[in-house]
Amino acid sequence: MKIAVDAFGGDNAPEAVVKGCVAAASMCDAEIILVGKEKVIAELLKKEEVPTGKIRIHNAEEIIETGDVPVEAIRRKKDSSLVVALNLVKTGEADAVVSAGNTGAYLAGSFRYLGRMDGVKRPALTTVMPTVGTPSVILDIGANADCRPAQLVQFAQMGAVYAENVLDIKNPRVALLNIGAEEAKGNALTKETHQLLKTAPVNFIGNIEPRDVPYGLADVIVCDGFTGNVVIKLIEGSASALFSMLKEAFYKNIFSKLAAAVLKPGLVKVKRRMDYSEYGGAPFLGIDGVVFKAHGSSDAKAIKNAVIAAARYVETGVNEKIKQSLSLYVAEEVVDDGEL
Amino acid sequence: MKIAVDAFGGDNAPEAVVKGCVAAASMCDAEIILVGKEKVIAELLKKEEVPTGKIRIHNAEEIIETGDVPVEAIRRKKDSSLVVALNLVKTGEADAVVSAGNTGAYLAGSFRYLGRMDGVKRPALTTVMPTVGTPSVILDIGANADCRPAQLVQFAQMGAVYAENVLDIKNPRVALLNIGAEEAKGNALTKETHQLLKTAPVNFIGNIEPRDVPYGLADVIVCDGFTGNVVIKLIEGSASALFSMLKEAFYKNIFSKLAAAVLKPGLVKVKRRMDYSEYGGAPFLGIDGVVFKAHGSSDAKAIKNAVIAAARYVETGVNEKIKQSLSLYVAEEVVDDGEL
Repeated sequence: MKIAVDAFGGDNAPEAVVKGCVAAASMCDAEIILVGKEKVIAELLKKEEVPTGKIRIHNAEEIIETGDVPVEAIRRKKDSSLVVALNLVKTGEADAVVSAGNTGAYLAGSFRYLGRMDGVKRPALTTVMPTVGTPSVILDIGANADCRPAQLVQFAQMGAVYAENVLDIKNPRVALLNIGAEEAKGNALTKETHQLLKTAPVNFIGNIEPRDVPYGLADVIVCDGFTGNVVIKLIEGSASALFSMLKEAFYKNIFSKLAAAVLKPGLVKVKRRMDYSEYGGAPFLGIDGVVFKAHGSSDAKAIKNAVIAAARYVETGVNEKIKQSLSLYVAEEVVDDGEL
Repeated sequence: MKIAVDAFGGDNAPEAVVKGCVAAASMCDAEIILVGKEKVIAELLKKEEVPTGKIRIHNAEEIIETGDVPVEAIRRKKDSSLVVALNLVKTGEADAVVSAGNTGAYLAGSFRYLGRMDGVKRPALTTVMPTVGTPSVILDIGANADCRPAQLVQFAQMGAVYAENVLDIKNPRVALLNIGAEEAKGNALTKETHQLLKTAPVNFIGNIEPRDVPYGLADVIVCDGFTGNVVIKLIEGSASALFSMLKEAFYKNIFSKLAAAVLKPGLVKVKRRMDYSEYGGAPFLGIDGVVFKAHGSSDAKAIKNAVIAAARYVETGVNEKIKQSLSLYVAEEVVDDGEL
């Protein structure tokens, strides 16, 4: 198996990416193709102990930056590490691609060079979200700001296959994010989706209320991309705001400072539990290829985890299983009544 | 001025409600009408020092419980403290009503007995949200799960009048909750609403991203009721989850327990800053009457604050000012293209 990694994507690229790939190389059965400026990568690899025959470099001279306009970047920067890495999957030279770069460009590039999987209405952005309990897969988190019920049902099917195979969660609990536990609650989209999910071939446990999301009461949380994006960014913002208030309280006087010092290891642990990068990355589900996105701020550990997760995704044949699930059941499209 | 208070609404009723009203009575220029079982209220008032002529009781024998089905409860329990209190406003015997009871029943009752204000497309549920900075008014938080752009523009107008008059925020910064700062970002609803808000007579500062909501970067945050409900419940859930993780870390050993004891006052302060009830309550904007909702878990202090806010709302003539704002500007309804 071969995994192409965009060596120049992410805030800590290329150093963290190279380090993460070296670590992953000795932990999984894949050959890693580092894509990007050959000379720079070669220099970085010299400093590492690279397992024989597990890493090679594929040159690409351009870099897509975080601030680049996605569709434009993909069209203009044909020799960027991101586009070249995607094309390695397209031509069959790699089985998967991993990048921590510009999310919009990555998504646009995946659409352009790999396209949708047969039978998929809309691919979805996914993330593995830390919770007080076990992590939850949430989708869509931003690829589709407006969704229709039948699309959400496919998100549920794809998310369940992913959670079961890559995260090792048997018969994952699938929930619909909604404002209220009762099935009659919600907006037009969630009310209709709830009905469709009741007969879909997933372990549908009903609605999950926003208040319960941080407690990990579901393994797969389904929602439209607007709501999903609000959820992950709001959790991030709430945690950061709360920590800033705690810091203020802890640095108030000499006694509180001393006490805070004693508690620091515990606080660091809590912060780490809330940290997305611990889970490495998550796939664009529904793309015709294996496309993993690592968090933009990924360190070497997060990159390592993303590469390992991508290898597991290929190994367990997630995309084949998704195709199978989608072919077995297609939710009826609701007639557009102008309300959704 | 007379304010009717539902003495039997909320988790801590009637004790906390009576206590709160007694406290409010000496702090504002209103006569308070406690609505509910006369004997019970009279007993409770005996224990308090009631300012002469500031509090009276209006009997109502029934109670609407938290678990009651809203529309049904309103129809069947005609002699409930909530319905009777609303009717005091309808008949002009009171200028405002305050309740910490069943939100759905309160909203349904407000619609039924008071109705919409002239020119209002949809009344909205509002709350005053604690942030790291100054509090933000957010609306709608659940009255309208599906919204159209022109409705959101009215929410902005009503929210701005409220923030300016009751919360004393001069020229309040109005922002649209959206996934991305750029105006082209978002779903069909937010993209269209953004364009309408640019010409609306409010101090529109653009989109606010979910990550920035807990930092108080806007005074009035506008969104559909589904999204607003997700926001307030998720912030609540995130804070509670984080505190439960901190508790676990702090109670790990004797040293951390001692350190946590030193920090307790600071932690309590942070918790209090995050506490909705500190702001007492918030109105249903757009109802033809002054209707204040206090949090279900309100203590006496929260009830006191809600009564004072309601009095201020009446004093400053917020509803008249809202009517004026809405008559000056009506956002064009976008033609239903089946996408919203």
